[in-house]
Amino acid sequence: MDAAEFRKRGKEMVDYIADYLEKIDKRQVFPDVEPGYLRPLIPDCAPQDPESFEDVFKDIEKIIMPGVTHWHSPYFFAYFPAASSFPALLADMLCGGIGCVGFSWAASPACTELETVVLDWLGKMINLPEEFLAGKDGRGGGVIQGSASEATLMSLLAARTKTIRRVQSEKPELTEAEVLGRLVAYASDQAHSSVERAALIGGVKIKNVSSDEEFTVCGSALKKVLEEDKAAGLIPFFFCATLGTTPCCSFDRLLELGPICNKENVWMHIDAAYAGSAFICPEFRHLLNGVEFADSFNFNPHKWLLVNFDCSAMWVKKRSDLTGAFKLDPLYLQHHHQESGLVTDYRHWQIPLGRRFRSLKLWFVLRMYGVTGLQEHIRKHIRLSHQFEHLVLQDERFEICAEVILGLVCFRLKGSNELNKALLKSINEAKKIHLVPCHLREKFVLRFAICSRTVESTHVKFAWQHISQLATDLLKTWEQNQQQQ
Amino acid sequence: MDAAEFRKRGKEMVDYIADYLEKIDKRQVFPDVEPGYLRPLIPDCAPQDPESFEDVFKDIEKIIMPGVTHWHSPYFFAYFPAASSFPALLADMLCGGIGCVGFSWAASPACTELETVVLDWLGKMINLPEEFLAGKDGRGGGVIQGSASEATLMSLLAARTKTIRRVQSEKPELTEAEVLGRLVAYASDQAHSSVERAALIGGVKIKNVSSDEEFTVCGSALKKVLEEDKAAGLIPFFFCATLGTTPCCSFDRLLELGPICNKENVWMHIDAAYAGSAFICPEFRHLLNGVEFADSFNFNPHKWLLVNFDCSAMWVKKRSDLTGAFKLDPLYLQHHHQESGLVTDYRHWQIPLGRRFRSLKLWFVLRMYGVTGLQEHIRKHIRLSHQFEHLVLQDERFEICAEVILGLVCFRLKGSNELNKALLKSINEAKKIHLVPCHLREKFVLRFAICSRTVESTHVKFAWQHISQLATDLLKTWEQNQQQQ
Repeated sequence: MDAAEFRKRGKEMVDYIADYLEKIDKRQVFPDVEPGYLRPLIPDCAPQDPESFEDVFKDIEKIIMPGVTHWHSPYFFAYFPAASSFPALLADMLCGGIGCVGFSWAASPACTELETVVLDWLGKMINLPEEFLAGKDGRGGGVIQGSASEATLMSLLAARTKTIRRVQSEKPELTEAEVLGRLVAYASDQAHSSVERAALIGGVKIKNVSSDEEFTVCGSALKKVLEEDKAAGLIPFFFCATLGTTPCCSFDRLLELGPICNKENVWMHIDAAYAGSAFICPEFRHLLNGVEFADSFNFNPHKWLLVNFDCSAMWVKKRSDLTGAFKLDPLYLQHHHQESGLVTDYRHWQIPLGRRFRSLKLWFVLRMYGVTGLQEHIRKHIRLSHQFEHLVLQDERFEICAEVILGLVCFRLKGSNELNKALLKSINEAKKIHLVPCHLREKFVLRFAICSRTVESTHVKFAWQHISQLATDLLKTWEQNQQQQ
Repeated sequence: MDAAEFRKRGKEMVDYIADYLEKIDKRQVFPDVEPGYLRPLIPDCAPQDPESFEDVFKDIEKIIMPGVTHWHSPYFFAYFPAASSFPALLADMLCGGIGCVGFSWAASPACTELETVVLDWLGKMINLPEEFLAGKDGRGGGVIQGSASEATLMSLLAARTKTIRRVQSEKPELTEAEVLGRLVAYASDQAHSSVERAALIGGVKIKNVSSDEEFTVCGSALKKVLEEDKAAGLIPFFFCATLGTTPCCSFDRLLELGPICNKENVWMHIDAAYAGSAFICPEFRHLLNGVEFADSFNFNPHKWLLVNFDCSAMWVKKRSDLTGAFKLDPLYLQHHHQESGLVTDYRHWQIPLGRRFRSLKLWFVLRMYGVTGLQEHIRKHIRLSHQFEHLVLQDERFEICAEVILGLVCFRLKGSNELNKALLKSINEAKKIHLVPCHLREKFVLRFAICSRTVESTHVKFAWQHISQLATDLLKTWEQNQQQQ
């Protein structure tokens, strides 16, 4: 394919994508296919000779679309939102066209510098303390990671190296392996599985800190486990606080936890993967109070800020903590400017070496929506979650299981877990809407997350009427079964 | 921006990208900007109110392009190639449009299933042993990672878990920390820095294995260090063999190394990040002989197979080794089919949780180029590297520093490292072409990598004449300076 054909096909693809997104509500949100559906539909091997674009293009509807879960359907209420917007799509096209691999400043200066500056923009939008910003000569700064998992892992690794150095300087008789064997990381029992994973990768112990009846970790809970572990000869080194937990969007108490971490030389990382976007609205910024005690902070514009995946924004107070975790500089990656102190080589801030020009997406979205446009988006989602909450509360067969703070509603039928599992099954088998569950303590709970950019009040109302009807049908048979038993 | 405006702007962006790539040879390959150039060009903060697409669009040429290193210029001969092709760009547009986050089968079945099948296609193209393929009920299979660094890390972590379990079952008195403290990973002294980094992340020791005069690791070198370390009570567990090293594209001797690793219970991972694409040509497939001894294998279609970054293909013989490294299953990620044995949840195969629909790029490229089209691309690059090699060899001021096997030529002026550093400096300051250096033993060497999809014989000839002229100029002043001293 040459440039002339790309002009033609690219425009057809633009129209296909616009059609797809404009009419996505007409598609069934969750596919009908069974595992293994795709293999029989395509050949066993790549073709020897080139196929035409038409051949490939017609297979999109024939082979791909029947197996797609439509994350941008207004009937998709599962997981958390995956962001998507037209400005982000345009920027990602440009990112592909430029096609640079920006692992160092020299590998494409614009790729590095736009990222640093736009993360300062974003940091200011959520009123992050100055220490987290790069500015012209700051010690902190931001970076775009691929996912919150990577941000958590990078912060844990930075904390690990820092702590090993500190402990070895105090107790030179300890080997690195001995220190490593005593390190303990902590997170809420409500924290995302990626925190446990980061600890497994880093070869350190991790312990749950018990959350309270509101599913949040308070200072006393952390203090208790730190005291116990220190008494047992262990070395607490890392605490991951969560703002907006995945099960129910609860918030750990930063203002209590931060001072404890600072006093105990424990690195505090804040994972606000979903909730972070809401902090651009002044009325939700209080949820971030206490960030001033943190060493690192992360949230995902690719969840809720209309920037397509992947764009996970992370800030640190001391960039040298990240780069010091494992700075390696082979000659083929060195360049003239790198020791000038003026440049950032983002390869030292992340797990992979290569990186796409992802800041373009963020830049396009921040400019073409403006702060006010993004605030409107967040506020609409939160308004809709409260709408759903009110509908649930009006039906006394149901209960709300956690305070609705942002765009997630945790709810269930009053009754057994089996009953609620059956309700979820009937919802997802009907495939008119799509939800996923969670456990809150011993309870099986349904999560209703406002997801799509285009979801409106009518979709939420429809979803509730549908759920309510399925519940009625279910309860009828359920009661019959109970009587028969 | 609504769908109607996206149709208009998307088409403008398609034309912009086509123009950029068609006329990229008119742009200076390496930018003139100095560190910090970008910040003064844009505002301090994100705008409150939306800006128009036109405002943003005109800043691409004004702010971004002056700071771009043009990786797809036919005058770019630095690092290794970054792949780019029109079919891949089209597929990536579709990937963004669908915008699913395919961490599990249920999160978008097509996203998972296409990846599995297309990696079988690619595996067959390089004639990987059957064990590495997923097929209908294989124990192995392929996955798309973001980068070779992540593939190396994942294989090292899988090997670590496997070894800790084995050692603990043999010696139950050892704690996990004690075993971890004795584990040693190995790689060539020519291996990529990401291997050392993987070991640092995983908290295990890593040792260099000495390469020979051809910069390759042979069996005896590995055997020697394994014996020494075992005698010292250490536990060798992981060897990363490199096919196509970054400094000079040398190849470790798999046929000698593989049996040793198998005998010693050492996981052999093969990093063929750049070279792997060449194995689709039968005349280069012999370089992969011995892969049958490996546990995992990786190469980057995003380097040399015309699939835009990121698309790093990795295969394992036993998928359970990867998923067993740290399988975690919170309820909100579980789904109906996951215990059926039929489905793949790729989140267990990788570091991040989220993942884009990257197999679309690979599928589009394999189909629209066909195997023959891709072979032509590889063969053209290798032909051009030999053309450059011959030009160098005809000039007796220069020497070739390593055998030219694929698309990389390592060369230098006969003389001091300082002289060659001065030559590279004059080349990169002239900015007509762009190269990076490497060290081969004590020698400072220039790397000439054939990179661009559109590079032709005329560009290579131009590059050589330019280098040759700069060398003449340099040697003149250099000799004058020597005489004056």
